[in-house]
Amino acid sequence: MDEKRIGRVLEKMEGAGLSQLLVTDPLSIGYLTGAYIYPGERMLALLLRADKAHRFFVNALFPAPGCGIPVTRFSDTDDGPAEILPYLDREKPLGVDKTWPARFLIRLIELGAASGYVNGSPCVDWVRAVKDADEQEKMRRSSAVNDACMAEFVKAVHIGATEKELEQKFIEIYAAHGCEGVSFTPIVGFGKNAADPHHGNDGTKLEKGMCVLLDVGGVYGGYCSDMTRTFFTAPPTPEEEKVYNLVKAANEAAEAIIKPGVRLCDIDAAARKVIAGAGYGEAFYHRLGHFIGLEDHEYGDVSSAFDRPVEPGMCFSIEPGIYLEGKFGVRIEDLVIVTETGCEVLNRYPKDLTVLEL
Amino acid sequence: MDEKRIGRVLEKMEGAGLSQLLVTDPLSIGYLTGAYIYPGERMLALLLRADKAHRFFVNALFPAPGCGIPVTRFSDTDDGPAEILPYLDREKPLGVDKTWPARFLIRLIELGAASGYVNGSPCVDWVRAVKDADEQEKMRRSSAVNDACMAEFVKAVHIGATEKELEQKFIEIYAAHGCEGVSFTPIVGFGKNAADPHHGNDGTKLEKGMCVLLDVGGVYGGYCSDMTRTFFTAPPTPEEEKVYNLVKAANEAAEAIIKPGVRLCDIDAAARKVIAGAGYGEAFYHRLGHFIGLEDHEYGDVSSAFDRPVEPGMCFSIEPGIYLEGKFGVRIEDLVIVTETGCEVLNRYPKDLTVLEL
Repeated sequence: MDEKRIGRVLEKMEGAGLSQLLVTDPLSIGYLTGAYIYPGERMLALLLRADKAHRFFVNALFPAPGCGIPVTRFSDTDDGPAEILPYLDREKPLGVDKTWPARFLIRLIELGAASGYVNGSPCVDWVRAVKDADEQEKMRRSSAVNDACMAEFVKAVHIGATEKELEQKFIEIYAAHGCEGVSFTPIVGFGKNAADPHHGNDGTKLEKGMCVLLDVGGVYGGYCSDMTRTFFTAPPTPEEEKVYNLVKAANEAAEAIIKPGVRLCDIDAAARKVIAGAGYGEAFYHRLGHFIGLEDHEYGDVSSAFDRPVEPGMCFSIEPGIYLEGKFGVRIEDLVIVTETGCEVLNRYPKDLTVLEL
Repeated sequence: MDEKRIGRVLEKMEGAGLSQLLVTDPLSIGYLTGAYIYPGERMLALLLRADKAHRFFVNALFPAPGCGIPVTRFSDTDDGPAEILPYLDREKPLGVDKTWPARFLIRLIELGAASGYVNGSPCVDWVRAVKDADEQEKMRRSSAVNDACMAEFVKAVHIGATEKELEQKFIEIYAAHGCEGVSFTPIVGFGKNAADPHHGNDGTKLEKGMCVLLDVGGVYGGYCSDMTRTFFTAPPTPEEEKVYNLVKAANEAAEAIIKPGVRLCDIDAAARKVIAGAGYGEAFYHRLGHFIGLEDHEYGDVSSAFDRPVEPGMCFSIEPGIYLEGKFGVRIEDLVIVTETGCEVLNRYPKDLTVLEL
């Protein structure tokens, strides 16, 4: 059990008027207790209480967590939420983790477990969002590995290669660099496929003249990296060059204004202004970035929906893009950590317009 | 949109007294609409209504599903559940899919979206549980591939191999056999590691005399396989032989009684009786099996918690085990499909006690 981290969560609970919170995200539980348990469809919950009578609910099928918090064990045939009931205060609201499967929450509601149910995730999520020194160092190392891998990916790109084939190759390169896995399936988009921000890699073969969008990340030492670079395979058309430079300028404009106190929505706006100002506003239709750490997508967006001011230690992506359906797409993404005076850009891989010599 | 499948869900909704149901599991949505969308942390929901005024809620970031159901698109900065509100009947209960993240359900509750909330998953899950002819053929083919892969896995086992190394090798063998992926990370347990049913593969090296438990499955044509075999690497001790033969007898006793009308709990009991009767009841502490199909673990257990009679087309695992902590473990698992008169065992890989010649 990490008393410092749990203490930070209890402070946030107090601020939110919550005396009881069910943490259920396996990574949040691991972050707070040191016990990483992946329950699949089975119930897993850590009850945090303001009076510190915390309790951990773990199916007997999994090893004992041994983290210093009293544990209730139950079996596959038990009614899991009913096991939690005796430890809840029915007269008070219960904070519930954002991803807890509805079937457990509905069962607690049926049992009359609390006076009300609120999304209590921010109490944990805003703690996870601010990385401590050890985590910052791990994020730095993970992104350094990603930079090194990107250099190898680029060497693996060749005319006639399919997106699927490169995906497989990239996964092998991550493994060879000591990554435990990938942050997400590498996205490889050739030509017009790059205009779909969530393109599923397919058998498309690279032809000279297509752009090559690589959105990639590995998990190293438990922490995720995530970077996007877009390359050309022939001298760019005037439109390609214009779009590329706009996206790069948007990326840099956002990174330039990050410092403690600046709101997430204003960072988003700084990038969007560059792109919209040139008439491409509608071609940039996703958030500017997301928080990242133990997971590739953690809670918190760099978007107009979040007006929270950033704090030192926060780590998120800056990834503007312009997507021209049926033609091509460009996205440039770095990870940043907010510092006392600005931000540290974790990705050093160059982002100048590059024509690959293939 | 698959009108036949949706029609079967609407029948179950009627039986459950539900006029509105939010299906949110991406695989259930794909199964019913043909549109497989993986939304990550974003909201995705298919509203099924008894009056057939169905509606599909898809973030604008994903491609249009084009499945014949009217679609509401929304962006990252919209309040997703508020988009569903106008299509709900606030005076009636709402069925909610079992895995929908709590944050969306809590928001719907805040908005007063319905008169109550119930776990409506069984309306979809018991439809998915009964495989149609096309799906049965896909399950058969997927398990045939698993049988063929198991034959290669056994050849890859050697003294000194680590569990992690074999895991990687097995993943490669699945890919070489045309699998899209694995049903789950292959479980490789040597010696006392085999006594932990959810062992995480590690650097343990195989030594002569250790048992080798392989719990493995691949995804082929969209459908999952899942099989466990346990091997010996030296002539078994009397206790090992006894335990092995008990587990095999339990597996076969369960498979022998499966036919339409027999309850899931009675199938579980048939296997448990064999093991408990020999004094090993406490060493078999998990359910006998789980349903399987598009996912490795689908809704429905072969356990004392489920008294539903089985129907032709249902597909699940039969996987008794005996786990002797600090010593060794044995599990033998097949997939079966219920037929009109009994069951078809999908796995043909032999399950007689085998000593590998290493």
